[in-house]
Amino acid sequence: MATDSLKQDPAVFAARLSRAAATAATADLDALLITPGSDLRYLLGARGESFERLSTLVLPATGNGAAPVLVLPKLEAPGYADVPADELGIEIVTWVDGEDPHALVADLLRRGGAPSRLGVADVMPALHTLPLGAATGAEQVLAGSVLRELRMRKDAAEIEALRTAGAAIDRVHARMAEFLRAGRTEAQVGADIAAAIVEEGHTEADFVIVGSAANGASPHHALSDRVIEAGDVVVVDIGGPIPSGYNSDCTRTYAVGEPSQPDVRETYAVLQAAQDAAVRAVRPGATAESIDAAAREPIAAAGFGEQFIHRTGHGIGLDVHEEPYIVGGSTLELEAGMAFSIEPGIYQSGRWGARIEDIVIVTDDGVLSVNSQPHDLVVLPA
Amino acid sequence: MATDSLKQDPAVFAARLSRAAATAATADLDALLITPGSDLRYLLGARGESFERLSTLVLPATGNGAAPVLVLPKLEAPGYADVPADELGIEIVTWVDGEDPHALVADLLRRGGAPSRLGVADVMPALHTLPLGAATGAEQVLAGSVLRELRMRKDAAEIEALRTAGAAIDRVHARMAEFLRAGRTEAQVGADIAAAIVEEGHTEADFVIVGSAANGASPHHALSDRVIEAGDVVVVDIGGPIPSGYNSDCTRTYAVGEPSQPDVRETYAVLQAAQDAAVRAVRPGATAESIDAAAREPIAAAGFGEQFIHRTGHGIGLDVHEEPYIVGGSTLELEAGMAFSIEPGIYQSGRWGARIEDIVIVTDDGVLSVNSQPHDLVVLPA
Repeated sequence: MATDSLKQDPAVFAARLSRAAATAATADLDALLITPGSDLRYLLGARGESFERLSTLVLPATGNGAAPVLVLPKLEAPGYADVPADELGIEIVTWVDGEDPHALVADLLRRGGAPSRLGVADVMPALHTLPLGAATGAEQVLAGSVLRELRMRKDAAEIEALRTAGAAIDRVHARMAEFLRAGRTEAQVGADIAAAIVEEGHTEADFVIVGSAANGASPHHALSDRVIEAGDVVVVDIGGPIPSGYNSDCTRTYAVGEPSQPDVRETYAVLQAAQDAAVRAVRPGATAESIDAAAREPIAAAGFGEQFIHRTGHGIGLDVHEEPYIVGGSTLELEAGMAFSIEPGIYQSGRWGARIEDIVIVTDDGVLSVNSQPHDLVVLPA
Repeated sequence: MATDSLKQDPAVFAARLSRAAATAATADLDALLITPGSDLRYLLGARGESFERLSTLVLPATGNGAAPVLVLPKLEAPGYADVPADELGIEIVTWVDGEDPHALVADLLRRGGAPSRLGVADVMPALHTLPLGAATGAEQVLAGSVLRELRMRKDAAEIEALRTAGAAIDRVHARMAEFLRAGRTEAQVGADIAAAIVEEGHTEADFVIVGSAANGASPHHALSDRVIEAGDVVVVDIGGPIPSGYNSDCTRTYAVGEPSQPDVRETYAVLQAAQDAAVRAVRPGATAESIDAAAREPIAAAGFGEQFIHRTGHGIGLDVHEEPYIVGGSTLELEAGMAFSIEPGIYQSGRWGARIEDIVIVTDDGVLSVNSQPHDLVVLPA
């Protein structure tokens, strides 16, 4: 419930609020209702958590007569003390147990005239979405459809934060020989990696995947008590937030001694070429689906199309997964400042898997990667 | 994404699914849509996490022609491998990136006829609630209105789990003199408490509040770098889940040496009497609001009504906060098996605060508390 330790200038939040209100107006929305989550952190620096008690920013669209209001349960208000409400022209309205916060929000919205169309935070739980719909009588659409237009395009400070996070997770991968050895369980290796993630500058280890042998063929496998053996191929996909709130996310695939499965080297070379091709395809104007295709085609051509069972990437910023998604069917055109993962994988069910993931940022004339550890299959001492 | 380590009999889940389907029918719902969270863990033992990719149980109401289906992103499916889907008669349907999971769910629902009214999980994010509403064309209501009827009433195994959790957090409070001393910061004390919470049998420290002096007057203050001083009153509110998923939550108020504020002893005696009165008021047939009043009236009579700024309690189980809420205006009649906190507080803004919290369970003829540490102001060596 503390606020962003990246002590950003209130002017940054003022500009974001103003752009969000203007974009909401363009989308024919009367207001945005933003409950705690990354959107609220992006707009106000506040990193409150969502509980059953409603906390929400009510942000009227440009041209709406009402002023922005931050509605908070009285006992949560101290957690928002660092929000520069006065400088941002935001009124704080608190409520106490026994009052109806959804009716309160509806009343506040009516200051700008009865609302007909509202944007609600993508993360808002139904516990609040449905009563707010009933109390306001307004049509609800996803606020993400407005806010992604802002959040997808990172400014210079955000890019710097993502590079800082990338360098921090690179340092963890560079230390992998300290942690990953035959005879240790995935869970033991994972605990050491989690500690290193914090040591290298993250506030927490948000996710630690150590997928050895057949476990590596399940992309979202986390950790298990399986003992790693000499000859195993191991997928290590790790990341977390740094103090500014921006996230790292980087995957490398290791071999503990020379791989025991005969098809590893040849298959891995296909994956590495595919990941490289996708990164090289990134530039302003390229579509998201074209980047997905650039990764998918060489893998399919080598006969592994059915073993690449997920999209090529996801946006990253204050959320680990956010817009833009690099997926077939997305005709979104990339623009400078967009940040996302490029992470094809090949999964040999029941035997082994491999994935290579970098976070890349679209530049004015191409792409930069925030991760710089080698892409080769790293053979560690067994 | 692993399943419940409390290896429960599939028959438990079969019975819960059957009751949920029957209660949904009584509520005129065609089906329940349950995304990952405590409801899904309660119904299936699955503790998947919610991501931007839709995972949901589609549970048709009794009498609806369709069978239950678990819709999962293909890459999340391994995390649900322990769900006894065959024994429970649940079909698993997976989807892959690029497909429209909301349209898929709508198609599955139509097997039982076009749905007109659906219950959606209280925790479902708007990211899924709104597209599911559009794809199905059905009215949406909170599934919690159905599931709370089941989850509020704990069975014998759940009561045992809450007692186990209560004993575990009691052991942490019993060790408080190890951690809480003058000259240490709240954060240092909190880190030691968090480690002890795990040592004593929890899977994690879900929350650790160490509110010293004026920080104790903010009920949801967590930790700070304030150095605790001799004479401070300190609110310690701690808890977390045990391996079965059931939670502890217990607050005691400590003094580090004799309290320096002159009004502590007299005020604390009021609070202690109020907490005791509320616990003694618990019995089948009593209303939630009557328990709230039993705590509130002695505090108000002593002139501290304005300093007790929250409800008296919240239900607890797989969630730390769940139904029933012990709050003014709730005419819910208590029944045997309901479990909730009794936690009045008195908050002297800018100076100090105190709160006493036990988890209690309604029995056939009264109440049992899962916590047994003394309620007195515990004076620790400074």
